[in-house]
Amino acid sequence: MSAESEVMDLSCPLPADHYTRIVTGHGGGGRLMRDLIDQIIRPELRNPILDQQHDSAAIELSSKKLAFTTDSYVIWPLFFPGGDIGSLAVYGTVNDLSMAGASAKYLSLSFILQEGLEMQTLQRILHSIRRAAEQADVCIVTGDTKVIEGGANPGLYINTSGIGEITIDPPLSPFAISTGDAVLLNGDIGRHGTCIMALRENLQFSPEIESDCAPLHRQTEALLRSGCRIHCMRDLTRGGLTSAMVELAQCAQVGIDLQEEAIEVIPPVQSACDLFGLDPLSVANEGRFVAFVHPQDTARALSILEQESPGPVRKIGTVGEKKSHGQVRLLNSYGGQRILDLLSGEQLPRIC
Amino acid sequence: MSAESEVMDLSCPLPADHYTRIVTGHGGGGRLMRDLIDQIIRPELRNPILDQQHDSAAIELSSKKLAFTTDSYVIWPLFFPGGDIGSLAVYGTVNDLSMAGASAKYLSLSFILQEGLEMQTLQRILHSIRRAAEQADVCIVTGDTKVIEGGANPGLYINTSGIGEITIDPPLSPFAISTGDAVLLNGDIGRHGTCIMALRENLQFSPEIESDCAPLHRQTEALLRSGCRIHCMRDLTRGGLTSAMVELAQCAQVGIDLQEEAIEVIPPVQSACDLFGLDPLSVANEGRFVAFVHPQDTARALSILEQESPGPVRKIGTVGEKKSHGQVRLLNSYGGQRILDLLSGEQLPRIC
Repeated sequence: MSAESEVMDLSCPLPADHYTRIVTGHGGGGRLMRDLIDQIIRPELRNPILDQQHDSAAIELSSKKLAFTTDSYVIWPLFFPGGDIGSLAVYGTVNDLSMAGASAKYLSLSFILQEGLEMQTLQRILHSIRRAAEQADVCIVTGDTKVIEGGANPGLYINTSGIGEITIDPPLSPFAISTGDAVLLNGDIGRHGTCIMALRENLQFSPEIESDCAPLHRQTEALLRSGCRIHCMRDLTRGGLTSAMVELAQCAQVGIDLQEEAIEVIPPVQSACDLFGLDPLSVANEGRFVAFVHPQDTARALSILEQESPGPVRKIGTVGEKKSHGQVRLLNSYGGQRILDLLSGEQLPRIC
Repeated sequence: MSAESEVMDLSCPLPADHYTRIVTGHGGGGRLMRDLIDQIIRPELRNPILDQQHDSAAIELSSKKLAFTTDSYVIWPLFFPGGDIGSLAVYGTVNDLSMAGASAKYLSLSFILQEGLEMQTLQRILHSIRRAAEQADVCIVTGDTKVIEGGANPGLYINTSGIGEITIDPPLSPFAISTGDAVLLNGDIGRHGTCIMALRENLQFSPEIESDCAPLHRQTEALLRSGCRIHCMRDLTRGGLTSAMVELAQCAQVGIDLQEEAIEVIPPVQSACDLFGLDPLSVANEGRFVAFVHPQDTARALSILEQESPGPVRKIGTVGEKKSHGQVRLLNSYGGQRILDLLSGEQLPRIC
């Protein structure tokens, strides 16, 4: 960009709500950016802490033990059956806090907007963010907006970081996984990844595949409140069930045996996987997690999860002996077994 | 991307350190991503909390009153005299916490990498992030990595979010600014923005303009420790001194008078501004801030800031009467005055 065009950029006199698309000046720290924040962003997300209008939000917590997490969301397309980049950005980060046994309290929200993004698209995503934050009982307290060059299909990237309160002791951890633990799964797998893939390839399955994108805090909090001995939890995002299990097995240095028949895949997801040559066990989910539970608490934990989960809750496996190199085996009822390993690369770019 | 190319993508057998550039699979949740994190990212940033290897970091604080802030960094070029996107991403977020009167403790670090980014560039930035975190006494405890399509000059975006402990009471706030307050500034202005502009336009000034990018926590903590009655602080980033003063005046509903001669601009910055048609008061800084101080504490606050600041510390103005519409006047010694207002758009895209 030449010096001349930059100087000309200073003279736009219109308030933000007169712009139908994002322009570079919306990230410039001047009146356009302030109008964008005051007229478009803040009214949707309004709360007393955000209204402090300071560089940082001042917040209070009831615990000094916190969980802290961050994720950037680059999913494309921005809208998909069952969700959009906004709800995903809220639920994804809240779920990471839930997996640590924490109650999500506060989120930050940072936008990287591409020049040319339709203002209506941003407003629709903001609305979705607000609804998701309400669903997840979390408060958005601080934010940031940047603008970058756009392309033919201008979109946006979102970062959310989250703070939650940890009230359990000892904390959940991959290192707490123990021989004999039951592995519970809260529903069928593979929906999110195949939903996005079908959308990109413009393929329709019957019934339509909806993303499983959802907040998990009610399920995890009910589990923890019950007093069941939960050792670790992990959500099944990029890399799916396989990545989560292999990483945990290696981290905890244990063997894990999974029962193939206990892992549910709905027919349209299986059809999509067959068509695309994917293993549903490695496809991303956004509302599924595994819990490692003391064997004596298995039945009670299953019954608690069933009350809170929309999907079928199952015990899908058992933690075996300590091993210096953790290993995950997939067993079937015919006596067959397969060693699960991480895929090298990825099946789908920009899946979350 | 077709289904076929995605399936082929699964077969790359090389560990991360064999890749000289980022590929899509580095964001896929499989082995490539794990190798990138384990071999490239984690070794540089290693600390016991990051080594928990959980979805969220479990952290402990000594206060239940926190400051929480977020910023995404999209600056281009990635490296510039006086800093790079990595040090900027650490200092920028730490400074936002400092401005709230908080001691920065923990940072999150989220990368959006463009396919094709050189691995050496990422490593250089990681190294800079580590050094900056050491300088700023802050610990990076949780992170995320995504990969998006690259262009002709693949780069990266960084989000850092920060948690700091607030130990002062009452808290700093724009609403605490009071009639009679002295406005102190910790150095000359306009370096960061003109440095980036000169770099993009391939212009050289003598002496070279270096960004003022720096952590401010030593200065702000010394001020607060001294017991001086500090009412508000604000760093002068996008939109420069003008945006900060106008926003604060409007928020606090006060008039503010600034003395033009007290505001220092070094000769090469002034030359660059003259050449590009910019007002140095509206150019971005990354190591400058204003403090609003009770008038009786002005001399002591100045002397404390002088000990910690590399630049010339000045009282540049005074807060006037309450007004329903805050106003900032720039006065000179000839009796002239100019009303400062926000620029509409921006002078420079991707300045931070």
